[in-house]
Amino acid sequence: MKSINSLGKIILASKSPRREEILSKINLNFEIAPSNIDEKLDAKLNPIAYVQDCAEKKAHKVSLDYKENYIIGADTVVVFDNQILGKPKDKLESYSMLKMLSGEKHKVFTGVSIQNYSKKTSQSFYCLTTVELNTLSDELISFYIEKHKPFDKAGSYGIQDWFSSQVKSIDVCYYNVMGLPLSELFKRLLILVNK
Amino acid sequence: MKSINSLGKIILASKSPRREEILSKINLNFEIAPSNIDEKLDAKLNPIAYVQDCAEKKAHKVSLDYKENYIIGADTVVVFDNQILGKPKDKLESYSMLKMLSGEKHKVFTGVSIQNYSKKTSQSFYCLTTVELNTLSDELISFYIEKHKPFDKAGSYGIQDWFSSQVKSIDVCYYNVMGLPLSELFKRLLILVNK
Repeated sequence: MKSINSLGKIILASKSPRREEILSKINLNFEIAPSNIDEKLDAKLNPIAYVQDCAEKKAHKVSLDYKENYIIGADTVVVFDNQILGKPKDKLESYSMLKMLSGEKHKVFTGVSIQNYSKKTSQSFYCLTTVELNTLSDELISFYIEKHKPFDKAGSYGIQDWFSSQVKSIDVCYYNVMGLPLSELFKRLLILVNK
Repeated sequence: MKSINSLGKIILASKSPRREEILSKINLNFEIAPSNIDEKLDAKLNPIAYVQDCAEKKAHKVSLDYKENYIIGADTVVVFDNQILGKPKDKLESYSMLKMLSGEKHKVFTGVSIQNYSKKTSQSFYCLTTVELNTLSDELISFYIEKHKPFDKAGSYGIQDWFSSQVKSIDVCYYNVMGLPLSELFKRLLILVNK
């Protein structure tokens, strides 16, 4: 069996420190090259199409600068009551997102794209995880926003930080909620290696 | 609302670095005092009774040295096919556990006990999470055991290390599998504060 590191250096097209942390868990040989694509959210889009489309755009843009490497792009959104929640733009939006999610179940979609420009290969997939939160008091919400400033996180929370104490249950994949469904990604990289 | 830190310094009756990491997420004022209780596993016991009993024993022993403090004890086991799996004693047992769990669903039980000797309070609870693993090749299992030496972990894997790449799905609580169901613990500490 060949190691996934025989794919050569992989490029993570993301500036998310959570995604970097996740890839580091499997000792992947990778470097970071954010796509800096403007993530304009059309809330009417189907979230499955949206996250995959966004992941593909990020990976594609970066692949033009790293034509020989495999590129991983990813995008995560939170969906509640048929509404897509991206990153909150300020404290007020952060508060309103967390108030809405309090005590309820919501869905987290992460789309992933794996591309290699020279090899003319591109594939994408998504992972869906349901998250149920504890009931959050106004004081807890305010404390969290002031202290943890979750403005770079879809849905306005980070499942790996203090907010982990407010997650009642998750169903399917913790790392999907954190930003990158590692187990499915690992399987797909392993298939690429052994092709 | 009072902060859970108004409970004073909490004592974690565990030497698990994973449990320490989990409590650190919520900025809890705590210190570590392992109970060093001999975890003799009677595989015929009901796992729910077993983990709570074990958590209580650990917390009780430490409470005798810290009579004024709240003590947290915890114990985690993996259950597959009605068999309780504790920590593997060597490479061979580690291999046989992972081979057994490969491609299947198993259950992880964590029992938690919160005690305060002076206040004569003691409560315990448990959390159950179902984990499904990818199919693991013999090479992957051997690689993992050699590289990560999972001998201090129930079921022979750490959900937060390289092995995270082999977890297909979990249902309920990631931190339960890691060793301490944080969300339920947080709720109970908050109730104690506001009593």
